[in-house]
Amino acid sequence: MRILVLGGDGYLGWPTAMYFSKLGHEVFIVDNLSKRYWEAQHGVSPLMSIPSLQKRVRIWQEVTEKEIKFFIGDTTNHRFIYGAIERAMPDAIIHYAEQPSAPYSMYNREHAVFTQVNNIVGTLNVLFAMKKYVPNAHLIKLGTMGVYGTPNIDIEEGFIEIKHKGRKDVLPFPKRAGSFYHLTKVHDSNNIEFACKVLELGATDLHQGPVYGIDTDETILHSNLVTSFHYDEIFGTVLNRFCVEAAIGVPLTVYGKGSQTRGYLNICDTLQCVRIAVENPAVLGEYRVMNQFTEVFSVMQLAEIVKTAGEKMGLKVDIRNISNPRVEKEEHYYNPKNEKFLKLGLQPHKLSDVLLDSMLKRIIEAKENIDTSIILPSIKWKHKVI
Amino acid sequence: MRILVLGGDGYLGWPTAMYFSKLGHEVFIVDNLSKRYWEAQHGVSPLMSIPSLQKRVRIWQEVTEKEIKFFIGDTTNHRFIYGAIERAMPDAIIHYAEQPSAPYSMYNREHAVFTQVNNIVGTLNVLFAMKKYVPNAHLIKLGTMGVYGTPNIDIEEGFIEIKHKGRKDVLPFPKRAGSFYHLTKVHDSNNIEFACKVLELGATDLHQGPVYGIDTDETILHSNLVTSFHYDEIFGTVLNRFCVEAAIGVPLTVYGKGSQTRGYLNICDTLQCVRIAVENPAVLGEYRVMNQFTEVFSVMQLAEIVKTAGEKMGLKVDIRNISNPRVEKEEHYYNPKNEKFLKLGLQPHKLSDVLLDSMLKRIIEAKENIDTSIILPSIKWKHKVI
Repeated sequence: MRILVLGGDGYLGWPTAMYFSKLGHEVFIVDNLSKRYWEAQHGVSPLMSIPSLQKRVRIWQEVTEKEIKFFIGDTTNHRFIYGAIERAMPDAIIHYAEQPSAPYSMYNREHAVFTQVNNIVGTLNVLFAMKKYVPNAHLIKLGTMGVYGTPNIDIEEGFIEIKHKGRKDVLPFPKRAGSFYHLTKVHDSNNIEFACKVLELGATDLHQGPVYGIDTDETILHSNLVTSFHYDEIFGTVLNRFCVEAAIGVPLTVYGKGSQTRGYLNICDTLQCVRIAVENPAVLGEYRVMNQFTEVFSVMQLAEIVKTAGEKMGLKVDIRNISNPRVEKEEHYYNPKNEKFLKLGLQPHKLSDVLLDSMLKRIIEAKENIDTSIILPSIKWKHKVI
Repeated sequence: MRILVLGGDGYLGWPTAMYFSKLGHEVFIVDNLSKRYWEAQHGVSPLMSIPSLQKRVRIWQEVTEKEIKFFIGDTTNHRFIYGAIERAMPDAIIHYAEQPSAPYSMYNREHAVFTQVNNIVGTLNVLFAMKKYVPNAHLIKLGTMGVYGTPNIDIEEGFIEIKHKGRKDVLPFPKRAGSFYHLTKVHDSNNIEFACKVLELGATDLHQGPVYGIDTDETILHSNLVTSFHYDEIFGTVLNRFCVEAAIGVPLTVYGKGSQTRGYLNICDTLQCVRIAVENPAVLGEYRVMNQFTEVFSVMQLAEIVKTAGEKMGLKVDIRNISNPRVEKEEHYYNPKNEKFLKLGLQPHKLSDVLLDSMLKRIIEAKENIDTSIILPSIKWKHKVI
């Protein structure tokens, strides 16, 4: 198949591109490299420094003799993305090309507006480009479990049957996102559902939980094939951040009480889920939603798991509850469903000591790169600079 | 009170500005005049030609000795809207300043993207401007009943209690909008609900049905105080279009079967509802939704009502079902609630022969202005130019 990975220079996009290339598919990347710019804006960097996309692709070819083609440009520029899609003629488009950070979107007005325009316009342009050049292609769009918020009922996959005053209907699951970033995924979902209907496209919307992990089968083939692993307050997801804190002996910083509960998954399972979606495409006109996570934890449970794993390795690990920079419920019901992927054959990599062990070792090797000043949350949901 | 009307040059904005000015409030208008530009883009014009905003305001002052101040500029330019709000220091902001046409948004990719960016960014800028300059002000945001689509259950006002697998919660009513324009109102609602929480603002989201009518108590004070009445395929709402068709003796063009059902209201009731919202503000941190319509009709019922009224006046009125340019259900359940406004004292002006009579007479007076070439739908939801 011809597979186009939008955002193929990112934490998940780059491993995805290598994964499908290794499987024998013809892989194309689109990226505007803006993550590298956003890092510079806020003075944060990934744990392992990342070669240029040009170099990554060159090394991938040296190591595997497989070619990944790429287009450097911006999905919000429709002439660019039309050109890229016309040249790649993909069967599947895996769309990670969005500003992915909640704290980034909450930094100020400019970041909120940028995040919304960037994510919404990029996705609209991709939908119209599909209609024009590859109307039979399958869009696999990365969303977030954060679109659902924390309702007091079970979280179904995208839709819910509602019985109300003696009548019933299956309707989109009510959304209640917790940041201007998370809201863009709600907006995207609504736009994509409508576009599938009027443009007669097929799309799978993957509402993904926070991802953790450093290595995949492909990243470990060469030191320069590493992915962009963040531990900072802006781009670092919670488990990754805790592991870095454990490795350098600073307390694990739990926001608020830590009873906030979410569905998580390993980076290798992101690849597995995306592959399953590619192999089981939505039909034309279909808008399909699947929840993409493997296990549910509270933040405090994650901290305890990291503490245990760290202490087994002889690290001294403390946990500290700090003031929650976000506006979110700390005590809440949380029971999301992920049956669709399980039915399609997902084999979860559960969060085990073995995995954390290897993550912690990997982080300790790169210890000298860690900048402790970028970990604590400075961006707050309330009382922001306007 | 100090009242800022965003979009105060429009079909509803201008009558709203005059209405509150007449009531003795200090009224400010913001408008970028872009409706006049969109008309030019598509070669459509309102039935009665509209003086410049500068002239309207001058005549208003001559007629009533009341001043309406205005700022010409764009809400998507945050420096402009920050400046306007800092100078107006409103107690209430009535926000009509959005691209309001579904067909316009469906014309092509560029119009879809423009509509989404224009509406979303303008509203985000207004929210941040409120936080900075008037954190206690009340935002009254015009939305559309179209956000709900046509679910097979009763449409509640913004929120619904859902019972699911033995648990329950009150959640946002599921949205399913039918155009890229209608989707912007869904996005706005989600953004505003979140902003009320984190920026601690008070907002009322008015999901309004299609509005009909030409005259209000203020527009009739002087021929140059008329509002921008559209009958074209882009900006003309259905009842207004039917009345124009009846007046010139062309068949009333019913899209599809005409069993599509919606909640409608008279332009005078828009003013009444907005006044009720201003007088009963949301509290700080509150995001409140009210459905704004007075009567429910199918498109065919509206056509029959216009036919009857026209024939009483001696007009020959035919009804023609034409191919539906939209993607929408033609047979569906529709039972929306509007109890909140009724409880707050709304006195609906029902659609009666008397009203249609005066509308038809008014249109016949301006008959020589009617351009029959702009009525039939050329913009289709499917098979669009990409």
